[in-house]
Amino acid sequence: MSTIAPQVVEHVAEVARAARTAARQLALLTRAEKDAALLALADAVDAGADRVVQANEEDLERGRAAGLPENLLDRLTLDADRTRAVADALRQVASLPDPVGEVVRGSTLANGLQIRQVRVPMGVVGMIYEARPNVTVDAAGLGLKSGNAVILRGGSAAGSTNAALVAILRAGLEERGISPDAVTLLSEGGHDAARALMTARGLVDLVIPRGGAGLIQTVVTESTVPVIETGIGNCHVVVDASADPDMAVSIVTNSKTHRTSVCNAAESLLVHRDAAERVLPGVMEQLAAAGVTVHGDEEMRRYAEAAGAAFQPITDEDDDTEFLSLDISARVVADLDAAIAHVQEHTSGHTEAIVTADRAAARRFTAEVDAAAVLVNASTRFTDGGEFGFGAEIGISTQKLHARGPMALPELTTTKWVVEGDGQVR
Amino acid sequence: MSTIAPQVVEHVAEVARAARTAARQLALLTRAEKDAALLALADAVDAGADRVVQANEEDLERGRAAGLPENLLDRLTLDADRTRAVADALRQVASLPDPVGEVVRGSTLANGLQIRQVRVPMGVVGMIYEARPNVTVDAAGLGLKSGNAVILRGGSAAGSTNAALVAILRAGLEERGISPDAVTLLSEGGHDAARALMTARGLVDLVIPRGGAGLIQTVVTESTVPVIETGIGNCHVVVDASADPDMAVSIVTNSKTHRTSVCNAAESLLVHRDAAERVLPGVMEQLAAAGVTVHGDEEMRRYAEAAGAAFQPITDEDDDTEFLSLDISARVVADLDAAIAHVQEHTSGHTEAIVTADRAAARRFTAEVDAAAVLVNASTRFTDGGEFGFGAEIGISTQKLHARGPMALPELTTTKWVVEGDGQVR
Repeated sequence: MSTIAPQVVEHVAEVARAARTAARQLALLTRAEKDAALLALADAVDAGADRVVQANEEDLERGRAAGLPENLLDRLTLDADRTRAVADALRQVASLPDPVGEVVRGSTLANGLQIRQVRVPMGVVGMIYEARPNVTVDAAGLGLKSGNAVILRGGSAAGSTNAALVAILRAGLEERGISPDAVTLLSEGGHDAARALMTARGLVDLVIPRGGAGLIQTVVTESTVPVIETGIGNCHVVVDASADPDMAVSIVTNSKTHRTSVCNAAESLLVHRDAAERVLPGVMEQLAAAGVTVHGDEEMRRYAEAAGAAFQPITDEDDDTEFLSLDISARVVADLDAAIAHVQEHTSGHTEAIVTADRAAARRFTAEVDAAAVLVNASTRFTDGGEFGFGAEIGISTQKLHARGPMALPELTTTKWVVEGDGQVR
Repeated sequence: MSTIAPQVVEHVAEVARAARTAARQLALLTRAEKDAALLALADAVDAGADRVVQANEEDLERGRAAGLPENLLDRLTLDADRTRAVADALRQVASLPDPVGEVVRGSTLANGLQIRQVRVPMGVVGMIYEARPNVTVDAAGLGLKSGNAVILRGGSAAGSTNAALVAILRAGLEERGISPDAVTLLSEGGHDAARALMTARGLVDLVIPRGGAGLIQTVVTESTVPVIETGIGNCHVVVDASADPDMAVSIVTNSKTHRTSVCNAAESLLVHRDAAERVLPGVMEQLAAAGVTVHGDEEMRRYAEAAGAAFQPITDEDDDTEFLSLDISARVVADLDAAIAHVQEHTSGHTEAIVTADRAAARRFTAEVDAAAVLVNASTRFTDGGEFGFGAEIGISTQKLHARGPMALPELTTTKWVVEGDGQVR
């Protein structure tokens, strides 16, 4: 690991110290003050939409010139409609309950001390993400509502858009009497700036990486600041012997094809041998209609070919691949034990689903499979902050520390024990 | 950073894989099964006490020959009485509620999906700690109760004692039909074994370091597995203008002198100028009587010398020093603002206390000071799992992620979302 340029370390430290000062102010704001600021920021984004769209066109032009693939260009795009949606997301965050100040638990001890565990902001949160400018505004809004200052390190491909957005947000904060250092964009220093952010121990309280496996791996390996990993989803759908065939067809198809580029899309299908004959003709027909390529074992080949689905023989690698495309790995398994063992071995800890009519099978699957979300008779696509009713989402955690699964406002807070006495000593 | 010897990496990976298999079994045990096992382990420790004490004498002999200081030898000592206490701690853990299976929150969504967030074990927890053999048994007991397999890397000075204890625990588990790999001691591989443990991503779910600042710093910097830091305590007592003098004397004295070697002992005293004349003569008298050396400013010097307390002029370094001895840094401050600013700058995030009769001062202090525990009119010594009524403690977290303050059984768990539907798709 090479040394980080000292002037970048100092720049990031300065930004973080300013953010810390802002965070102290944010921590004391009332919900009413924060909500009013969020609504004002939403109006400011609407009012500045032309500026944002123009900056975004600059980014897109550079991206096209650099040969960015179409799906990345799409994620980078912030046209007038999407800018409006981004402003509306701020209004949505204003409508959510404030996690700060919630008393999580408390009691009065035998000696009369009153203890209570109260939700408080983290302090300074660093976000390291790729060229998705909507994350810039979402993170700023969720940060403000949860009382945290945010330091944003977005992908350089979105540099002009992010600069325009953050300028609008900072001006909006200042107008409401809130320190603009509540939202800072780290635009200088290249990759070193991200590394300085992840190692600013004592200045930054939490780093959240959002992006591909490579980005997350780098942050986890190099960070000395606490990290919440948001991760990949190698999600399985297990069709049990007792599965209702129509339900199995519908859940497999929806999990795989509803939207392929997302982490809660299904990537693997495991079918109990006793269900194969009843379920697989229908499943393959739907997958074929949607244009899915089945990476399957020899038993799967029969059903795939009969339904006219594209087929490739499965490789060991396929079992661990998050395709994010119209591909699925598929195996027939001998029984529920084999299905659970396969999931335990290959799960990425995101979402695992079973289709079953058997109560004991459902109980075993939910107890034994170790993932952020374990679903019975529902599409994997439901693992999502919006679907769960959280109103907003900062990411989906696939690790076990602090937060697991969809993360929203409470996950951006920590707690503090407040102890009140009248002179107690030990 | 040098490379870790490959055979050590492989050894630790093997241990961790075995622990993972054991963890799957532990996760499914009922509370009754776990409690029965804990009571059996307690009996086994009692029955094997002679063997433990003898092994401990070997460690002590080596320690004395190596010139270990008296306080380390004391922490290393496990005589017959302490062995009984260690066994009783297992019985105590058996009496605590089981965190596993608790439904933390849940709801029924508009589409009929029932979602619930359920507490589940972490999986495999690594403990890296110094030569305190009681931690070996505590960690094994808390791990078992919370459904986690533990991999223990204790200080080599306690090698024989830990080996004897873990042999007893493993045999006891096996007798109850529980995999002995639920508790493993990493006794080989030297420092490389600890480093292999902290970098066993995917095999180890959590590492908890317990020990001095150096150990914790190493683990935080080198670990790629999620870490919960248990940290140092540079705890302040602030005496506000409105403080009751007797209460102030009692809380300052107790916080500093009740037990000096612990992380919740006070290390710094800040006295509002308007309280100095009423409070400091009594405080200094008590500190002098207890043999405390006051590292103070010029105003403190007057009071210290008048009371006959040992005195040294305060240095900048003293403001950040966790003395863990009969020393205290002490300053007179102009007002509450100055006191809060000083605490904000020098807190280690453990415990901060104010003595005040003023409701507004108490509210400001508890709101603005950012620490795991903020106390009003109580001794800093109360930040403790036992005192808080948690029954057991695996450490005190001074960081903000996952757990903050005293950590007990719930802090050794994560959650899983269980979603049940009847065929819902998006």
